[in-house]
Amino acid sequence: MSLRGLGVEPRCRCSGTEHRRIGKLIESIELFPPNPHCKDTEIIATLKSTRQEICLDITAPWVQKIVEKIMANKAP
Amino acid sequence: MSLRGLGVEPRCRCSGTEHRRIGKLIESIELFPPNPHCKDTEIIATLKSTRQEICLDITAPWVQKIVEKIMANKAP
Repeated sequence: MSLRGLGVEPRCRCSGTEHRRIGKLIESIELFPPNPHCKDTEIIATLKSTRQEICLDITAPWVQKIVEKIMANKAP
Repeated sequence: MSLRGLGVEPRCRCSGTEHRRIGKLIESIELFPPNPHCKDTEIIATLKSTRQEICLDITAPWVQKIVEKIMANKAP
């Protein structure tokens, strides 16, 4: 859930992930593919009202569904 | 391909999309779901070296594949 820091840091950005289903609160989602500094894809959602950034669990089915929905041109 | 502006603007962010397959150059991808100010999902890629932001075509199969790859925990 928490973000270690923003920008280009040579490590993973997330130190944990949000488990609640916050799909309706999401304004945008950023995907960071695996890279030499972080072995797993990281997904960071920005919330609508607060602009808070929240790390999501790529293995959670509801997270996969939200990305599929957005890629199908639908709101999450 | 071009970006109209950054931040929370009450309109679409992209005025065109990149048609070249630039998957290998992508550092991260941001997804903006449809909203009252922009009826279609927008996808903006940030490039590795230049940090340039490029709008991608959500209907392009290579773009869909890149997002699927990242969501499968693989580099694009």
